[in-house]
Amino acid sequence: MSKRVGKQTVLMDKPVYITESFTCAGEKESQGPLGECFDIRLNDDKWGEDSFEKCERKMFKCVLHGCMKKAGIAAGDVDMVLSGDLLNQTISASFAALDFKGSYIGLYGACSTMAESMALAACLIDGGSAERIIAMTGSHFCTAERQYRMPLEMGTQKTPTSQWTVTGTGGAYLGGRNTGAGITAVTFGRVIDMGINDANNMGAAMAPAAADTIYQHFKATGTSPQDYDAVITGDLGALGKDIAFDLLLKRGVQCKDKLADCGCMIFSPEQDTHMGGSGCGCSATVMNGHIIPMIKSGQYKKVLFVATGALLSLTSSMQGDNIPAIAHAVQIEHL
Amino acid sequence: MSKRVGKQTVLMDKPVYITESFTCAGEKESQGPLGECFDIRLNDDKWGEDSFEKCERKMFKCVLHGCMKKAGIAAGDVDMVLSGDLLNQTISASFAALDFKGSYIGLYGACSTMAESMALAACLIDGGSAERIIAMTGSHFCTAERQYRMPLEMGTQKTPTSQWTVTGTGGAYLGGRNTGAGITAVTFGRVIDMGINDANNMGAAMAPAAADTIYQHFKATGTSPQDYDAVITGDLGALGKDIAFDLLLKRGVQCKDKLADCGCMIFSPEQDTHMGGSGCGCSATVMNGHIIPMIKSGQYKKVLFVATGALLSLTSSMQGDNIPAIAHAVQIEHL
Repeated sequence: MSKRVGKQTVLMDKPVYITESFTCAGEKESQGPLGECFDIRLNDDKWGEDSFEKCERKMFKCVLHGCMKKAGIAAGDVDMVLSGDLLNQTISASFAALDFKGSYIGLYGACSTMAESMALAACLIDGGSAERIIAMTGSHFCTAERQYRMPLEMGTQKTPTSQWTVTGTGGAYLGGRNTGAGITAVTFGRVIDMGINDANNMGAAMAPAAADTIYQHFKATGTSPQDYDAVITGDLGALGKDIAFDLLLKRGVQCKDKLADCGCMIFSPEQDTHMGGSGCGCSATVMNGHIIPMIKSGQYKKVLFVATGALLSLTSSMQGDNIPAIAHAVQIEHL
Repeated sequence: MSKRVGKQTVLMDKPVYITESFTCAGEKESQGPLGECFDIRLNDDKWGEDSFEKCERKMFKCVLHGCMKKAGIAAGDVDMVLSGDLLNQTISASFAALDFKGSYIGLYGACSTMAESMALAACLIDGGSAERIIAMTGSHFCTAERQYRMPLEMGTQKTPTSQWTVTGTGGAYLGGRNTGAGITAVTFGRVIDMGINDANNMGAAMAPAAADTIYQHFKATGTSPQDYDAVITGDLGALGKDIAFDLLLKRGVQCKDKLADCGCMIFSPEQDTHMGGSGCGCSATVMNGHIIPMIKSGQYKKVLFVATGALLSLTSSMQGDNIPAIAHAVQIEHL
């Protein structure tokens, strides 16, 4: 039985183990600083499929099967899949779930989906609703550009504050045996709108949500940045990370040397992605491919993972709306 | 602490009370057989807003505030809002959540969202992650037509198997005091594709998912249709309901006189909606406005609510994919 503390935080009764993780990354991502961490590395944008969308779906299926294979279990051994993605009606996640014969819970949290799915999975397992869950998400640069921005063929120039949607999928198999990492607390974020309406500056739109969730988590758990080896945001990018840092400082939280961002880790400056990586696949690959293994090995003892999502659509932007954002936090410890 | 039984079902340790419900319905829906049941009845499609999408959002906000007002509570008394909708990136739900200062969990289950959100809320409350949750969803005929089909101005003729997206929103405040109805078990569905690819025949696409979830629920709980006063599907429509009935019969489940469908209840035959109502708002309004009050009054002692969702998008249809579907079940009892 979990325990609610503060306004938005849930403490696990027992740690929910992150038994296995699996990642699949695109060509550019595989050439980046974390390339070696990913289980599957693609050489092109379609992976033998006839559309970018079908490639994205195949990458979701790859992670689903990869998690089970790594853990040595069959589909029948997993109770639920929790997933979502950026495409309209989250088709990548839903169609991939056809390969799984158990319960599917569809989510929409934009780029916060990796944390949203892990946090919900932890609550469902700790509360007795399920024993074993796969939480997964991902994104594809070409499908996201086509849907949210311009056809790639137009060669539209990106603005300086823009980020690069990661081609990558990642997932975690939760609730199996202890392999060194477990979720001990989660904080579900609230939707925040601080007036940003530039769809090419997602980092600024999401930073207040990240700062708020981090603040609420520290407050509810009675901890501070010093209690963690790292506070890792999902995909704020370089600008968003700086804004989140400042916003936390204004609320008396000094994150110096502790704040890191998946969007700033996945590409090197030479890869010319402006503010860095973004998309559901950004934190899905960086966390599952890089950070969680570091927690398992004991290099990190305690990490707060905070994935952020910008909850806009083309329709809302075209109707003049601001960009509301959300961030969910997952506290992961070396066990 | 909840208990998992069978492959997809969760039994609540204690009933999760459906303390209050609130509904907001469009003009056509308000003129239908259940018109009197809805809390707010609109006289036009925009409700003073300058777009259909903003009207839909206002209807979500109306339900959020309505649930709290009816229950006599403030936003601070609710731990979480669980919601989602049909629009790309679920903007109605996300933007409405700006009016709420607590945790928001975004879902995507297409027209299964009312059951998905209620089922998840019940698990989170029973498992200790939250005490009080508002689960809500809805849809708008004009936003759905514009996004999924044709601009209304074209006056495109509807095919005989089509359904009419309900303009309506509904929500339930769960976890407060006992007012006569409670959730005692839930079954999370799996994604099923039986080969239907006609986007104007959603009933046929969703019927196998409904039949499967109903079958799994009976099997896991050791019950049969005779143990329920009604098995109420979300929005299969007239054709889909018949298909679900036949599919259940093939698996040895005789639902005679027990199977009812929200899509068949909300409009009268004279309202010319072909196979009946559909959309997240269909079961959201019919359940919260009509069925749950009947359970509270004791007219129904035990109901299985099974909302169904077609997990397609324009992109998947245009790339030649079938329509995968899902159904989630919520067992509600008079208490």
